[in-house]
Amino acid sequence: MKIENIITEIQPLDRNAMTAAAARLDSLIKPIGSLGKLEELAVRLAGITGDFTSRFSKKAIVVMCADNGVYEEGVSSAPQIVTLMQSANFKKGITGVGVLSKLSQSNLVVVDMGINSEIKSENFLDRKIRKGTHNLAKQPAMSREEALQAIGMGFDEVRKLHENGYSVVGTGEMGLGNTTTSSLVLMALTHCSVEEATGKGAGLTEEVFLHKKNVIRNAFEFHRPNSDDPINVLEKVGGFDIAGLVGVYLGAAYFRLPVVIDGVISATAALLAFNLCNKTRDFMIPSHCSEEPGYAVAMKQLGMSPYFNLGMRLGEGSGCPLTFLLIDAAQNIINDMATFDEAAMDNSKLVDIRTH
Amino acid sequence: MKIENIITEIQPLDRNAMTAAAARLDSLIKPIGSLGKLEELAVRLAGITGDFTSRFSKKAIVVMCADNGVYEEGVSSAPQIVTLMQSANFKKGITGVGVLSKLSQSNLVVVDMGINSEIKSENFLDRKIRKGTHNLAKQPAMSREEALQAIGMGFDEVRKLHENGYSVVGTGEMGLGNTTTSSLVLMALTHCSVEEATGKGAGLTEEVFLHKKNVIRNAFEFHRPNSDDPINVLEKVGGFDIAGLVGVYLGAAYFRLPVVIDGVISATAALLAFNLCNKTRDFMIPSHCSEEPGYAVAMKQLGMSPYFNLGMRLGEGSGCPLTFLLIDAAQNIINDMATFDEAAMDNSKLVDIRTH
Repeated sequence: MKIENIITEIQPLDRNAMTAAAARLDSLIKPIGSLGKLEELAVRLAGITGDFTSRFSKKAIVVMCADNGVYEEGVSSAPQIVTLMQSANFKKGITGVGVLSKLSQSNLVVVDMGINSEIKSENFLDRKIRKGTHNLAKQPAMSREEALQAIGMGFDEVRKLHENGYSVVGTGEMGLGNTTTSSLVLMALTHCSVEEATGKGAGLTEEVFLHKKNVIRNAFEFHRPNSDDPINVLEKVGGFDIAGLVGVYLGAAYFRLPVVIDGVISATAALLAFNLCNKTRDFMIPSHCSEEPGYAVAMKQLGMSPYFNLGMRLGEGSGCPLTFLLIDAAQNIINDMATFDEAAMDNSKLVDIRTH
Repeated sequence: MKIENIITEIQPLDRNAMTAAAARLDSLIKPIGSLGKLEELAVRLAGITGDFTSRFSKKAIVVMCADNGVYEEGVSSAPQIVTLMQSANFKKGITGVGVLSKLSQSNLVVVDMGINSEIKSENFLDRKIRKGTHNLAKQPAMSREEALQAIGMGFDEVRKLHENGYSVVGTGEMGLGNTTTSSLVLMALTHCSVEEATGKGAGLTEEVFLHKKNVIRNAFEFHRPNSDDPINVLEKVGGFDIAGLVGVYLGAAYFRLPVVIDGVISATAALLAFNLCNKTRDFMIPSHCSEEPGYAVAMKQLGMSPYFNLGMRLGEGSGCPLTFLLIDAAQNIINDMATFDEAAMDNSKLVDIRTH
């Protein structure tokens, strides 16, 4: 499916369902608005699905895994094989997102979009475009065709989830060097500075951190990506993981599923999707406030604020499971709380006793 | 049990267990510290229980219910019978805390500490001290003996939970007029202004809000509670719900159970408990940032910051269920994630293939 057609067919939120949800919330046995953002969330979920009684029982996190050619510039502290090893570990339930996803009973869909290895594993899907992008310090990370291919693959994963009855999607990623690519994408899209966009990722010495910022600064000058063309930005300074996640956001909006944003890389992909089609934003649910500075840049541009302050900076989709529980909380509130009328009926005996 | 004896016997956190927990966290397959506050929480839970492998499967929220004599000054917008009706509703699972507690499979212990009614119900425990406090606009809310009795009752509820194998406790309350008593307690303990301490509670017109602040200002001048004597503060301007929650915090510290703070009233009781015995703070877990302004005053004094930004202001203990899930998340991380050594062993086949 062509990206232009996907974008054209994305529909806005269902305002009637949102009005019905808001009315229901105001009829429940609580002061009006006293459940704050949980109520706002319930209203938006109604707008997404068209029905406030929807439940979101089948949950999945799509974890896009890929290596980045810019790794060879020395922007990361860990050996590159970590991308492969962690990608193989996710489904074993022993990583951060693995143990957290058990809490919300969510499945992981782990996708090899471009791990720098020949190895295949039953623990991830083989959608390898190439063994990692080119080194963006020297040339565009990928071709335009590859960027579109990666987006299409992300879209297809959501299509399959939708066909299999999944009702909510989370976004995760794994790929050494992807805080470098995220910084560059954010700088291209928001015109923010290297300092605003760049953090220490998984952890760097001050020296390597300075070097990383120089690599980013030089690459930005070299490419001067066209901020009006998100695909051009991806092509020059993106990664296969980020491109795949752009497809996940487009897919979520197209198939009308709420999609949870995790940390800075996931938020960067969300901003790309928003720049391709601003209606996609209505389907995105923020989660936690990442410690990576670029996260705040992306959120500001998206006009969103996160629900959790957990000082996390792991990635993998680790913010999604807790947010899935928040979605369940919002749905329990709108569906399972009593209205004033129901409660009064139920308490009539109690009140009768009182008045005698 | 005398309050002085309880306070004397509260022990500090177990530093050895905390050191072991921190070492375990640093050995897991993630960048060091990348799970932020979830890691801090896991370390503190280890300090509370003495063992980082503890799980917190049996969860309860103690909801202290009581009326306040100051209601007759017109500080609330709802009819006073709401205290009774909601207290009877909690166990039915149809209120805010009721539906949320299903998410984390937590039980509710609803306690009538002083509802203004003769009615008994199988839905709450009868620990009624009196049918509501005196009107603090005119006289002390309760006697010193009543304050101590209420604290003892809260302590006893935690003792029973501990005996029944519960491993984590949450705090909730219900009582018309209890944002007024909370404001007064916060002013007494922190010397903050009426404006800093006071919000619109369940929702007030601007006119009633101004009136509420006048009632609070006058009552504060009238009583001038002794800020060095938390029991004196309770006696003059507190409520039976707040006093009961002070007992819950003392009990949690005494029996070494983590105890979750909900909104402004719960946080006010936490600050009272902290002023009685500063070791209690180590056992308290914050939850969400209440919209009521007094909440921030209490948190600042306690040196805590909440995990969730949900714009909630319901009370009832509604912030506890989501925080229980955060506690589970922290325990899953420290116990179920693999260490680097374990993962390397597990991946040795993968790596072998790579190196050939």
